Amino acid sequence: MPEYSVIGQRLPRVDSMAKATGQARFTGDMALPGMLCGRILRSPYPHARILHIDPSRAQRLPGVRVVVTGKDTLGIKYCSIPVPDLYDEMALPTDTVRFMGEPVAAVAAIDEDRAEEALDLIRVEYEPLPAVFDPVEAMKAGAPQIHSVDQNIAFTVRHSVGDVEEGFRQSDYVREDTFTTQCVVHCALETHTSMASFEGSGKLTVWASSQSIFSLRDDLSLTLGVRLGDIRVIRPCVGGGFGGKIHMTGVEFCAALLSMKTSRPVKMAHSREEEFMAARCRHPMSLRIKTGVKRDGALMAKQVTNIADNGAYNSHGVVIIGRAGAQMSCLYRVPHFKYEGYLVYTNNEPGTAFRGFGHLQGRYADDCQMDLIAQDLGIDPVELRLQNAVQPGDVTPHLWKITSCALSECIEKASDRAGWKQRRKGLPPGRGLGMAGGSYVAGQRLRHGVSGAFASLHEDGSVTLLTGASDVGQGSDTLLSQIAAEELGVAFDDIKITSGDTAVTPVDPGAFASRTTIAAGNAVRLAAADAKRQLLEKVAEKLDANPADLEIKDRRIYVRGSPERGLGFADAVRSILYAFGGNAILGRGEFDAKTEPQDKDYLRHGAGHLSPAYSFGAQVIEVNVDRETGQVEPLRATVAQDCGFAINPLSLEGQVESCVAQAIGQALTEELVRKDGVVLDPSFLDYKLPTALEMPVVDTILVEPIEPVGPFGAKGMGEGTVVPTSPAIANAVQDALGIRLKSLPMTPERILKALEDQAE
Amino acid sequence: MPEYSVIGQRLPRVDSMAKATGQARFTGDMALPGMLCGRILRSPYPHARILHIDPSRAQRLPGVRVVVTGKDTLGIKYCSIPVPDLYDEMALPTDTVRFMGEPVAAVAAIDEDRAEEALDLIRVEYEPLPAVFDPVEAMKAGAPQIHSVDQNIAFTVRHSVGDVEEGFRQSDYVREDTFTTQCVVHCALETHTSMASFEGSGKLTVWASSQSIFSLRDDLSLTLGVRLGDIRVIRPCVGGGFGGKIHMTGVEFCAALLSMKTSRPVKMAHSREEEFMAARCRHPMSLRIKTGVKRDGALMAKQVTNIADNGAYNSHGVVIIGRAGAQMSCLYRVPHFKYEGYLVYTNNEPGTAFRGFGHLQGRYADDCQMDLIAQDLGIDPVELRLQNAVQPGDVTPHLWKITSCALSECIEKASDRAGWKQRRKGLPPGRGLGMAGGSYVAGQRLRHGVSGAFASLHEDGSVTLLTGASDVGQGSDTLLSQIAAEELGVAFDDIKITSGDTAVTPVDPGAFASRTTIAAGNAVRLAAADAKRQLLEKVAEKLDANPADLEIKDRRIYVRGSPERGLGFADAVRSILYAFGGNAILGRGEFDAKTEPQDKDYLRHGAGHLSPAYSFGAQVIEVNVDRETGQVEPLRATVAQDCGFAINPLSLEGQVESCVAQAIGQALTEELVRKDGVVLDPSFLDYKLPTALEMPVVDTILVEPIEPVGPFGAKGMGEGTVVPTSPAIANAVQDALGIRLKSLPMTPERILKALEDQAE
Repeated sequence: MPEYSVIGQRLPRVDSMAKATGQARFTGDMALPGMLCGRILRSPYPHARILHIDPSRAQRLPGVRVVVTGKDTLGIKYCSIPVPDLYDEMALPTDTVRFMGEPVAAVAAIDEDRAEEALDLIRVEYEPLPAVFDPVEAMKAGAPQIHSVDQNIAFTVRHSVGDVEEGFRQSDYVREDTFTTQCVVHCALETHTSMASFEGSGKLTVWASSQSIFSLRDDLSLTLGVRLGDIRVIRPCVGGGFGGKIHMTGVEFCAALLSMKTSRPVKMAHSREEEFMAARCRHPMSLRIKTGVKRDGALMAKQVTNIADNGAYNSHGVVIIGRAGAQMSCLYRVPHFKYEGYLVYTNNEPGTAFRGFGHLQGRYADDCQMDLIAQDLGIDPVELRLQNAVQPGDVTPHLWKITSCALSECIEKASDRAGWKQRRKGLPPGRGLGMAGGSYVAGQRLRHGVSGAFASLHEDGSVTLLTGASDVGQGSDTLLSQIAAEELGVAFDDIKITSGDTAVTPVDPGAFASRTTIAAGNAVRLAAADAKRQLLEKVAEKLDANPADLEIKDRRIYVRGSPERGLGFADAVRSILYAFGGNAILGRGEFDAKTEPQDKDYLRHGAGHLSPAYSFGAQVIEVNVDRETGQVEPLRATVAQDCGFAINPLSLEGQVESCVAQAIGQALTEELVRKDGVVLDPSFLDYKLPTALEMPVVDTILVEPIEPVGPFGAKGMGEGTVVPTSPAIANAVQDALGIRLKSLPMTPERILKALEDQAE
Repeated sequence: MPEYSVIGQRLPRVDSMAKATGQARFTGDMALPGMLCGRILRSPYPHARILHIDPSRAQRLPGVRVVVTGKDTLGIKYCSIPVPDLYDEMALPTDTVRFMGEPVAAVAAIDEDRAEEALDLIRVEYEPLPAVFDPVEAMKAGAPQIHSVDQNIAFTVRHSVGDVEEGFRQSDYVREDTFTTQCVVHCALETHTSMASFEGSGKLTVWASSQSIFSLRDDLSLTLGVRLGDIRVIRPCVGGGFGGKIHMTGVEFCAALLSMKTSRPVKMAHSREEEFMAARCRHPMSLRIKTGVKRDGALMAKQVTNIADNGAYNSHGVVIIGRAGAQMSCLYRVPHFKYEGYLVYTNNEPGTAFRGFGHLQGRYADDCQMDLIAQDLGIDPVELRLQNAVQPGDVTPHLWKITSCALSECIEKASDRAGWKQRRKGLPPGRGLGMAGGSYVAGQRLRHGVSGAFASLHEDGSVTLLTGASDVGQGSDTLLSQIAAEELGVAFDDIKITSGDTAVTPVDPGAFASRTTIAAGNAVRLAAADAKRQLLEKVAEKLDANPADLEIKDRRIYVRGSPERGLGFADAVRSILYAFGGNAILGRGEFDAKTEPQDKDYLRHGAGHLSPAYSFGAQVIEVNVDRETGQVEPLRATVAQDCGFAINPLSLEGQVESCVAQAIGQALTEELVRKDGVVLDPSFLDYKLPTALEMPVVDTILVEPIEPVGPFGAKGMGEGTVVPTSPAIANAVQDALGIRLKSLPMTPERILKALEDQAE
């Protein structure tokens, strides 16, 4: 292992001081002279035709500058996945609303009170339409039709490898289970916020809490009819995204449209209630799994049918449903595999990307069933997993080509550290240990996959780094600065990074799919290497040496082996820049993984080697269950995560802890409760997000196989760790109580009910 | 001449709509939450020791956040020319003030009224020192000493070529004259304005009306002790600079210091009065010229002694005094030349860079004397100039290596168009025609000479262009966009330029010395060419062609000669960006002219080939002089200007017209009148700036020799056209009245006085 100076270090975030002192500026802190406040009027019906909108009373209210409705738009449909066949949504619908809370009109006024008051004065005449909220009901003949598709099926994914029927025939044991997951919401502390400023020259500037400024620019361009190059999207600090800020919402669209109509800057933000009812959620899924195994535990065949609630619009659903299937073939080897996924429209709030992105739902079902199989066969769950674990060099049924993979090591390390063998049998009553594994892509693409970077060297030895990568709180600015510093041989704080401004930073798809480390990381490393090459060429002339013989370390450039033949990094840059006939040292780098889908119809199959690498992990969670109250208390999470080389262990541990927190909510407490389309718990008082008090001890083990495609051997892992937690908890509950819940969340009510059923 | 699509066009400015609609944002339009207002307390003495400053009463005033004095600084001296020997000024002096209006303290308060009130409450105890305001007096023994230098001589420039004494001996005719120029002020409509925001993390962001953000960053770093890389300087729209915004002033320094002391954003601006008394001015010069000529008009020898009023501090004076000398050897060939320039400290407001930068003063003297010589020898002034005009390939006595040069053509075209031969003899009484020539550098360096650029291609065919070049109203963003569009074969409005932000744009020295067209223009062209190369390599694969056989025109890429074998520019970029294993197309470019001073002590000699090219021009100005009132009215300015290839004739004509306007003020009406250091006319009511009503008809002839170093053959000319105007007017006055004024401005009083003297 080479000796590194900056990477591998537990460095604090580049923005930690600004955030700790309150000087960090979020979109909500932005202001422009003459700025107006925007608000959105939302549908009170889950499904209705808009017959007529009369904005006249609202428009007459003093302080109101404009009211816009679907009629003021180009009526263009879009979708987060840029495949025109999938476009099914208008940011402001012209004729039909399909979920309660869908935007119907928007208003810009001189302040928030005036804007709110104006909303009340807009008269909308609706014709309510029959609605359907359950995907199984929605597929039935005679169900209300939400879009012009048969059986309300928005998208079907089908993939088959081998012959599952033959696989079941060859199996000694076959079992079938159905698992269901609930609707949960991202709950980023910063709600969706946008400020837009349209100039008379036709230029639109949008500040937005976005995970993907270049995609947001695409969607704004398409739906507003403003040329891509005339739109500038700037991402100030972002207070969390978790997938909920990849897509364009009404906030970004309406702020821009209102600014275009008024020629004034317009700022608007979701209230927390709007965030719950309209900002999108995780797709609830119902997964039926039939698995066949040999007596010794070797998996032979797996057949999965998945029905997912798409909600009213597509968003990222078509990719997510594919990924749920891929997750069930990628972790434990299985020769015969068949998957059918149905993404079904309902009149619920649409689902979208959410940390885990379908993998979480699939893994929950699959790893719960693994424990049931282990139990039935009398095999230790850890042994069953190790026996079937995917290995480096494997190509999975979904065509993932596995490069680095430390799944077995993760399973072993997590179980060893948790004392699986010694402790599991002797735990006190109500205590249980559960294990689960998980995998995740490290960089699947949604639109394009290219990340770019520029690096400029300055005469004080500082380096300006430009990257389009989106730091939304996960710390990518820090990680990318470390990579650039390491490559250039300078100190961490020599790197001055700017990310997130389409007018100045090179292209980047955004923060999703755990892609930033590999894609933006490689682009940044290449830009730094390009600058370094230029620098060393010039320094070699000065030192009368070969550039290949020079190295840079700790801000000094010298001939390898002769440290006295050298000069300081800053001095070198200064002398080159200030020479007569001098040079500016400007590096460029870009990276896209050389993946191929191997399949033209890869969306329909949900299959293909679309990620440059994959991360793996295993978790053992210990719970205590109170039989009186049904309360499940996670005590300790032992997380072994394969992240490739750990660029910043401190930051990675933060990712692990936040994944565990989010997944505990998914497993135990969170659910967006809806009745006839009405969200019943749209507040942090009613929607039970885990707090610091509910957190178990998290014991993180970073497992670091070198990923050949990754920068310095690193790969992404910010999402993958969320995947194993809920099945691990479910398995721990089973270990504690002997009961198996097949639905999330495992609330006290459901635990008590299961205990009752067990007693009967 | 190749056929161009975008360059050579009369295109409107990229920011014209924003400026016309008022949406363009200047530094004064910026605001940040919690922002304070800063104001500066200035010295009421032209020379005094600061004995004690008591800020306590001011500090107790409610709303005042902090008062700073020299004691709160590091006490570091600086100078606009980064040669430590020249450092003589503190942004906030610790012990001595040397001109009236020098900053003494600064205050930050919650609003302007409070800040103004606080200034009145700061008690400063001074010990007045004897002062001197005339450079000749200042050089005398026993004069008050302003800095620790002999005879108050800040800097001496001496340069000699050939043997002037021998030259005078060989001459048939020798004459000697002394010409003096006055103090004028830049009068940019936007006064110096700065907003600074210092973060707890040690990062300082400064928005400033600056012509040179990278130099301002240097000076702030040096004087505040903040690391260069931790300072970000952003240039919003700038309302004119004319040289007055190259250097750091108290406004930028104090805003930053006050923000550092308060951890709050601080904004401050010069009042118009402060702009007049403290923002620096053009160096008054007194030039004694002795010239020897042959009977036929061939110049033989020229000896010049120049005494310049440096004011209290160096700023750019040491370079300007050298340039005044170089101007007098660069236009008309002279084999023997000797120059002595004395830059002398006085207790006046310091001089600094000002459009024309010493050339104006030198040319005024030299071209006035040329007319006197012509008169004495009975040679037509046009013929005398043509006879001696410098030609391409010449190396001037100051070592300028002349590449493109259309001086003779300019003299001919201007005189022809003005009807010199036909009209001059028969003009009515009071009318006169005068000619003068001029030359200027196109890119001399002050710190470093390197300009960099980045170009990124987007899938709609738009191009993000990043340049550090400073558009301060002169239109460089437009010109650079044209160059990038031409090189890439796209349309003008496909280019989206960002300039002026040290955190995102590559390095650039700034807007001065007419350097932007050649230096930043070449960098931008190279960045565009780099992107084009990457694009064509990929497109060649698609078209199964050789990249060298491809061309791009009007947004289409095709095989040369087979226009049907091609595809759209945007489609090509999109397909490359969106491919699996795609590419981002990111171009880099940088340029520094391969000039060399040829002389280690070039500052002391004011000589050297320091500019990649030189521009030339000639003007004929027709005036009417009212003998009763002494009023000189310029009627028509016929301007022939050698600008190399004219990238944007519309913009160049604007430069010509603004130069003529500014030089008319210099010639006729403007003077900062000072008595014992007190500025008597610090307002637009008293200081006579020419208005639109005073403007003559300007008839511009762009002469376009191809400059080999310039992008597409272009070179800079934004300053050079200011040079010939004042001697041309003086020569026209002589033609009209037969009187010769040897001092600027030629006010009615002076005209009447000269007429009286003539009558005697």
